[in-house]
Amino acid sequence: MSDINPNPKSENIKWHESTIDREKYERLRGHKGLVIWFTGLSGSGKSTLANALNEVLYEQKISTYILDGDNIRHGLCKDLGFSDKDRVENIRRIGEVANLFMQAGLVTITAFVSPFESDREKVKAIIGDQDFIEIFCDANLDVCEKRDTKGLYKKARQGEIKNFTGISSPYEIPSNPSLIVETGNLDLNESVKEIMNYLRKRNLLKNDL
Amino acid sequence: MSDINPNPKSENIKWHESTIDREKYERLRGHKGLVIWFTGLSGSGKSTLANALNEVLYEQKISTYILDGDNIRHGLCKDLGFSDKDRVENIRRIGEVANLFMQAGLVTITAFVSPFESDREKVKAIIGDQDFIEIFCDANLDVCEKRDTKGLYKKARQGEIKNFTGISSPYEIPSNPSLIVETGNLDLNESVKEIMNYLRKRNLLKNDL
Repeated sequence: MSDINPNPKSENIKWHESTIDREKYERLRGHKGLVIWFTGLSGSGKSTLANALNEVLYEQKISTYILDGDNIRHGLCKDLGFSDKDRVENIRRIGEVANLFMQAGLVTITAFVSPFESDREKVKAIIGDQDFIEIFCDANLDVCEKRDTKGLYKKARQGEIKNFTGISSPYEIPSNPSLIVETGNLDLNESVKEIMNYLRKRNLLKNDL
Repeated sequence: MSDINPNPKSENIKWHESTIDREKYERLRGHKGLVIWFTGLSGSGKSTLANALNEVLYEQKISTYILDGDNIRHGLCKDLGFSDKDRVENIRRIGEVANLFMQAGLVTITAFVSPFESDREKVKAIIGDQDFIEIFCDANLDVCEKRDTKGLYKKARQGEIKNFTGISSPYEIPSNPSLIVETGNLDLNESVKEIMNYLRKRNLLKNDL
């Protein structure tokens, strides 16, 4: 379940090449498809930042969609819990769905703790190096725990939540992210600006396809 | 795994209301999000028809995406086989992903055998009655088996493929589809025309949001 298997279970599957391919979808949108993958501790500002970025992109008529850790677990991944095995499968599925959205030409924003480097690497392998923008929301545990916006750290400390990242389950800091945003120090506007500067510098938002 | 559980495994999940909601996404696209769900035997023309419809919609600058049974099994559902249990989970996941694409304001076209009425009903419940367009590709088994475009019926008859719909696994005819297209009799253009007429009649493609 955890490994990326290039060979699906049935050999009787053939690829259907759609006559409308990614390039055509991108031409309709006016920009390239992309995955902007936020990672960081609970409370490090991933969802807030993802939503703020989304608003800025929307104003520029960029076609976006947010896959959100909290929301996707009510649907696609509601059969999964928080064991290591389930976390791995959770991120695998989200990576696959993010890839589909990117193939449809959307700038796909994801906001998940995604604590394991190996999982993020697997998603990167699905998406492709050039199109996978990994943004590390760098706020240290103290800051996140003090914020405790959802009251989860308190529950984790009291043992009510098991396998909680940062407390009872590790967070592996990205070794080579596309961008580090110091969400522990910067305010929201500054954080969004850093990301927009990065995207512009890499010419990822050009609107002239 | 097979039941739609309104309560996800963890109680510590809160809904994030994105500031860009479905209505806003639809305004950007200029039309409503929708799921067009093709169902029918292998060889009944689902994928061909889905692709042809997609081309017509693309020409009209409608934002679309195709989720295809054959393709999605290389990614999101590659851990699943063709047992009843795996088929149920396969369709469940696809329904959830189709819902996400619809929430993003896309006209989402799916082409899966989806042989079980109960699974299609569950997807309908996720998507919502108004937005779920179930199209039955009505070609009888003889026609499909004679075509045998992928050589699968032959393999199924020889027992090389188990649980093959129509041969060793049932296909439950939709009791109340949005539209029946007689793909056994009509040619491709006629079939597409029937669907376009249906969508126009229901005013589902208006381009003036």
